[in-house]
Amino acid sequence: MRKDGRAADALRKVTITPGWAKHAEGSALIDVGETRVLCTVSIEERVPQWMRGKGGGWVTAEYGMLPRATSTRTPRESGRGGASGRTHEIQRLIGRSLRAVTDLGALGERTLWVDCDVLQADGGTRTASITGAYVALVLALRSLQKRGLMGAQLPLTDFVAATSIGRVGGELLLDLDYEEDSSAEVDMNVVRTGSGRFVELQGTAEETPFGDDDLLSMLSLADKGVQELIALQKSVLGEVVLRPGRSSAARS
Amino acid sequence: MRKDGRAADALRKVTITPGWAKHAEGSALIDVGETRVLCTVSIEERVPQWMRGKGGGWVTAEYGMLPRATSTRTPRESGRGGASGRTHEIQRLIGRSLRAVTDLGALGERTLWVDCDVLQADGGTRTASITGAYVALVLALRSLQKRGLMGAQLPLTDFVAATSIGRVGGELLLDLDYEEDSSAEVDMNVVRTGSGRFVELQGTAEETPFGDDDLLSMLSLADKGVQELIALQKSVLGEVVLRPGRSSAARS
Amino acid sequence: MRKDGRAADALRKVTITPGWAKHAEGSALIDVGETRVLCTVSIEERVPQWMRGKGGGWVTAEYGMLPRATSTRTPRESGRGGASGRTHEIQRLIGRSLRAVTDLGALGERTLWVDCDVLQADGGTRTASITGAYVALVLALRSLQKRGLMGAQLPLTDFVAATSIGRVGGELLLDLDYEEDSSAEVDMNVVRTGSGRFVELQGTAEETPFGDDDLLSMLSLADKGVQELIALQKSVLGEVVLRPGRSSAARS
Amino acid sequence: MRKDGRAADALRKVTITPGWAKHAEGSALIDVGETRVLCTVSIEERVPQWMRGKGGGWVTAEYGMLPRATSTRTPRESGRGGASGRTHEIQRLIGRSLRAVTDLGALGERTLWVDCDVLQADGGTRTASITGAYVALVLALRSLQKRGLMGAQLPLTDFVAATSIGRVGGELLLDLDYEEDSSAEVDMNVVRTGSGRFVELQGTAEETPFGDDDLLSMLSLADKGVQELIALQKSVLGEVVLRPGRSSAARS
Amino acid sequence: MRKDGRAADALRKVTITPGWAKHAEGSALIDVGETRVLCTVSIEERVPQWMRGKGGGWVTAEYGMLPRATSTRTPRESGRGGASGRTHEIQRLIGRSLRAVTDLGALGERTLWVDCDVLQADGGTRTASITGAYVALVLALRSLQKRGLMGAQLPLTDFVAATSIGRVGGELLLDLDYEEDSSAEVDMNVVRTGSGRFVELQGTAEETPFGDDDLLSMLSLADKGVQELIALQKSVLGEVVLRPGRSSAARS
Amino acid sequence: MRKDGRAADALRKVTITPGWAKHAEGSALIDVGETRVLCTVSIEERVPQWMRGKGGGWVTAEYGMLPRATSTRTPRESGRGGASGRTHEIQRLIGRSLRAVTDLGALGERTLWVDCDVLQADGGTRTASITGAYVALVLALRSLQKRGLMGAQLPLTDFVAATSIGRVGGELLLDLDYEEDSSAEVDMNVVRTGSGRFVELQGTAEETPFGDDDLLSMLSLADKGVQELIALQKSVLGEVVLRPGRSSAARS
Repeated sequence: MRKDGRAADALRKVTITPGWAKHAEGSALIDVGETRVLCTVSIEERVPQWMRGKGGGWVTAEYGMLPRATSTRTPRESGRGGASGRTHEIQRLIGRSLRAVTDLGALGERTLWVDCDVLQADGGTRTASITGAYVALVLALRSLQKRGLMGAQLPLTDFVAATSIGRVGGELLLDLDYEEDSSAEVDMNVVRTGSGRFVELQGTAEETPFGDDDLLSMLSLADKGVQELIALQKSVLGEVVLRPGRSSAARS
Repeated sequence: MRKDGRAADALRKVTITPGWAKHAEGSALIDVGETRVLCTVSIEERVPQWMRGKGGGWVTAEYGMLPRATSTRTPRESGRGGASGRTHEIQRLIGRSLRAVTDLGALGERTLWVDCDVLQADGGTRTASITGAYVALVLALRSLQKRGLMGAQLPLTDFVAATSIGRVGGELLLDLDYEEDSSAEVDMNVVRTGSGRFVELQGTAEETPFGDDDLLSMLSLADKGVQELIALQKSVLGEVVLRPGRSSAARS
Repeated sequence: MRKDGRAADALRKVTITPGWAKHAEGSALIDVGETRVLCTVSIEERVPQWMRGKGGGWVTAEYGMLPRATSTRTPRESGRGGASGRTHEIQRLIGRSLRAVTDLGALGERTLWVDCDVLQADGGTRTASITGAYVALVLALRSLQKRGLMGAQLPLTDFVAATSIGRVGGELLLDLDYEEDSSAEVDMNVVRTGSGRFVELQGTAEETPFGDDDLLSMLSLADKGVQELIALQKSVLGEVVLRPGRSSAARS
Repeated sequence: MRKDGRAADALRKVTITPGWAKHAEGSALIDVGETRVLCTVSIEERVPQWMRGKGGGWVTAEYGMLPRATSTRTPRESGRGGASGRTHEIQRLIGRSLRAVTDLGALGERTLWVDCDVLQADGGTRTASITGAYVALVLALRSLQKRGLMGAQLPLTDFVAATSIGRVGGELLLDLDYEEDSSAEVDMNVVRTGSGRFVELQGTAEETPFGDDDLLSMLSLADKGVQELIALQKSVLGEVVLRPGRSSAARS
Repeated sequence: MRKDGRAADALRKVTITPGWAKHAEGSALIDVGETRVLCTVSIEERVPQWMRGKGGGWVTAEYGMLPRATSTRTPRESGRGGASGRTHEIQRLIGRSLRAVTDLGALGERTLWVDCDVLQADGGTRTASITGAYVALVLALRSLQKRGLMGAQLPLTDFVAATSIGRVGGELLLDLDYEEDSSAEVDMNVVRTGSGRFVELQGTAEETPFGDDDLLSMLSLADKGVQELIALQKSVLGEVVLRPGRSSAARS
Repeated sequence: MRKDGRAADALRKVTITPGWAKHAEGSALIDVGETRVLCTVSIEERVPQWMRGKGGGWVTAEYGMLPRATSTRTPRESGRGGASGRTHEIQRLIGRSLRAVTDLGALGERTLWVDCDVLQADGGTRTASITGAYVALVLALRSLQKRGLMGAQLPLTDFVAATSIGRVGGELLLDLDYEEDSSAEVDMNVVRTGSGRFVELQGTAEETPFGDDDLLSMLSLADKGVQELIALQKSVLGEVVLRPGRSSAARS
């Protein structure tokens, strides 16, 4: 039995509050259990140097954590000589995940800056960031539509959301909280689209290497979790007009 | 007439939500108009090297701003080689202001880490930080009481809160929002105690130096604003048992 | 009785040596008691990126301290990962103070770099820096006149100088040295113009908050000190042709 | 047909030269096609602060690249303010992979520093690093045996090696070189043990998300590649006496 | 008798392997006893900002050391906040030495980036770097000839090589290894041309200052060593068509 | 004829003002022509970690330059991410030069921090630093004598001073100013003791390598200059009781 009474294959309680931040073109506050992440998307009407003149856009992400988001205080990265390896790894993951469902050519010569800031951490901050950032991304693109700068079809080819799975005490669990994550023997993050295809798959044996059968069982759990998260994104966002792209072909 | 219909001598709408953050020993979310700051206080059971063995405690503050707290995105300080001069200036101000009403000797050999993180900025973030941090500080000290580590009397000698005053277009205004602040000819921040004494006074002529009469009028406005803020702190905190100290002598 | 036999309302011995440094367009060595600051002003014939094409100029300041300016050696900031918060705070103050009496529009598209380097410290380095830097600034502008790049009227609207006041052992004192400053209960820096108006006012209760009457007494002492400093600047500089500006209207 | 005439399921030519570096306790130069990595393992007879007194050891990795290992010169990380996000991500991966087959408790209170320096890069530097570092690790442990500091059984529970798989132009390929990697639609790195279990699995859709069937085909290719690499490690190292551990249970 | 049986005036065994690195325009691996340095030269078809439009080229050098090139592991410079003073000193020396025999005007508007990376260190890494880098430099220039971008005459006016001399236990020795260098009373590095002229001379008394006679004896040893190194460069490179320059006048 | 009318073999006007700085245990302001350096020596009653318990002391140097010491303003090193390569090279040279005449064993377990700060630069700042720092060093040691912490004999084995020589327009010149240095074909710094022995010798061909005869002529000029500088040190310091050491044997 899990601490909060959940079944092994159940997500924690998830809520997404769109438009939580006033200034950003798109924003969402996502709560996954006690984990709380503020996701904002800022639009800059130019692209990085190396992309200029190629006609496409760019999506990039940064990730941060407030000092007391954690159970004991963590020093600020600005005081430690820059972002840590963990931070870099996470923000690269968020960026890749969102770009995989974005048609950069259709975005136009603009950069979408995705900021995911963890206000409170209780495990799964990177997967919550991806799930929440997708909502903020859609809202930011809609703000371009409202200003007449984008047509009816968004430059997105699919939905995307993420969750974690792990083996704890020999049992496979969906959506680990911090305590479960700390004692997991195997830990896997899955980023998956609305059409059931993988964007990213990262499995790590924290102690004991895992076998092929473990892998398949974990992927099945992940699929269930991601489908529920995407259903929530859809209920928050209402109808989203996607762009027929290679990535939305699948699952049929 | 001010943008939001306020009188010249009126504060913006202020709300303080105590206990907003789960992990911190004390926390408060403060909203002053559209400015929103999360204040947390973390207790560390030791003091900095230079204070060891002297029997007293320490209070120190850090200040940060989410990248999209501002109307256009501001790069993270961790990516710019450390905190800016402005950040250092503000966090030193917050720390001094709270220490001025703290009896460090009575605190015991512990450090209180105050983190003020601006989630949304619309002017007055440093004064909102001080006002909110005082509430988080009291809550953190009460957590020590609950754990039996502190007596009935808190090691605080007074309340403290802060607000700004400015001259905009020739008129003196209380509690400037970002737009007012940007066009102010004179800008003053006042940190004042419950007993009506100054902890900190910082007046700056942005363009035109100001005279003695301006100064007195601004101080009078500040006094009105701080009294209202302290009344709000009291309603949020309920009864606070202060320590008779030098600073609480005044105003009678 | 003060250590050096001064009265409570007396400045320390102040001398200003104009032109001390060979290369700078303007320079002054200022001694305030045992505090010694070298102030130089360098002229760059362009403005920062964000000011280009607006037709005006800019004044910016940097502040430093030699490692053994202090009674025990202080490590260099270049070896500690950049300027400290204190350094940033002081150099922002110096820059604002000089800009408040400069007509930036009349300066032309150039930047004046003010460097204040403390060769020896005994309290009051920031106020000595402002007082000395004003002299260096006038000399730098005169070098432009000599090269035919500026008319007879300088782009300055007033004189400016600064001093400190504090309450030490219950008594109000003008122009604190290091030892007095270290034991002050209240510490105030005042930057004031030749026409008796405030440019900057920073009062801090180091331990005990202060009341309205203390404030008024300290301002009166400050006024006396600044008038004497400006009289010295005038004797060093000879006649200075100011620009009628908003800031020089006052005091009459 | 691949550029070098390889079959889709063939590794590049791999050679491992043990003992290439004179000073290190263990070292191996690994060539995978044109990719060349020098792996060294240094033994330090103490553990990081947070592990002291717990009786176990630690394995940590660093990764670097010579400036002209790449087809155009890459600036040094020491001149760019520290290691990049990519570098951090890779060195964390190498460290985790080796720790997963190390019995840290049996290692004793010592740290093994693994350095993987890319002398020449042509794709697959992180997987070559893991495969080569394992050989250096065994040699370093044997140096402890020679000095009488370790018994006959090494504190290793299994072999470990790594390779990449990708989908390029619709076809699945084993062990991508730089050119193939640059045009891959899907890219996967697999770290697997001698007993056929996963240590790490990282799959990324560079453009188009991938489906379940792709995943299974790629894992099958990876298995073939890793088995060949471990056969090579065995031929280079001769008999390795492993420690019966949880991770060596598998595949039977 | 020296550890390896050498005479006092003998170099260690030196081998130079041209073309060791695949990607660089020019490269050489140099072994001087147990010291091993990889030298690469990269060609960039532009010059630094301050040289643009002057019609000449530039040669600049960087120097690095792998963490376990040394007998105990040395932390990476990227993790220590940038290159050390020693590194800067060495790379400035390498750059100056190569520029002294290069006709920068005849090089054309391009930059030659020289990277000297120590794979294994046993004393004399800076002098081995210069000797090896010269070979890589010639090879890089020949690659320009092959591409038709440079005439038959190279923009070089002479050969250049370097070695060290020291007084150890009262005896003068040529080409010190690490152990000899560590116990040397006097240490001198000499960079000299094929025509027997000095490019750089750096003598340091590690403990006891040295006299004029010591100096002359050391210079004589250095001359012998450099002549042998240049003979080796010539045998590796075959005929090199130099440019008649001021520096090749000498020795006749 | 040189700009200031000097003969080719003449030093510039040199003055040394001992005790210029109030706080330092030893200090000297040295003027060499228009070059002005403030040298201070600070005593710390402990040694670096790696020297503890060995019974000896340490001498270390730092070098800095005020931003407007130069003819155009140079940005501060604290704002550029740390000391430059040139700064590191110079401070290592100063430290080695002073240590070569110090009997570290006789110094006791203390560190002497030498700070050389260039207030005005006109060529030869590193050699002026060494010459001035020696005077400050003697004064600092005498302060230990006055406090009864050191016997009559100083832990110094000799005097030391430094100057530069160069070939400019084909002519050999002693003590180059900035303009001469900028156009020198060959540039040499010589650090030499009172007994006429070399501590450091650094010759660099800026453009054209130099021959053996040039070298001997330059050394002869250097000898003349250093003897004059040491005569000045002696007249400033009065009698200095040296310690009979290996380095003071010479010249007789």
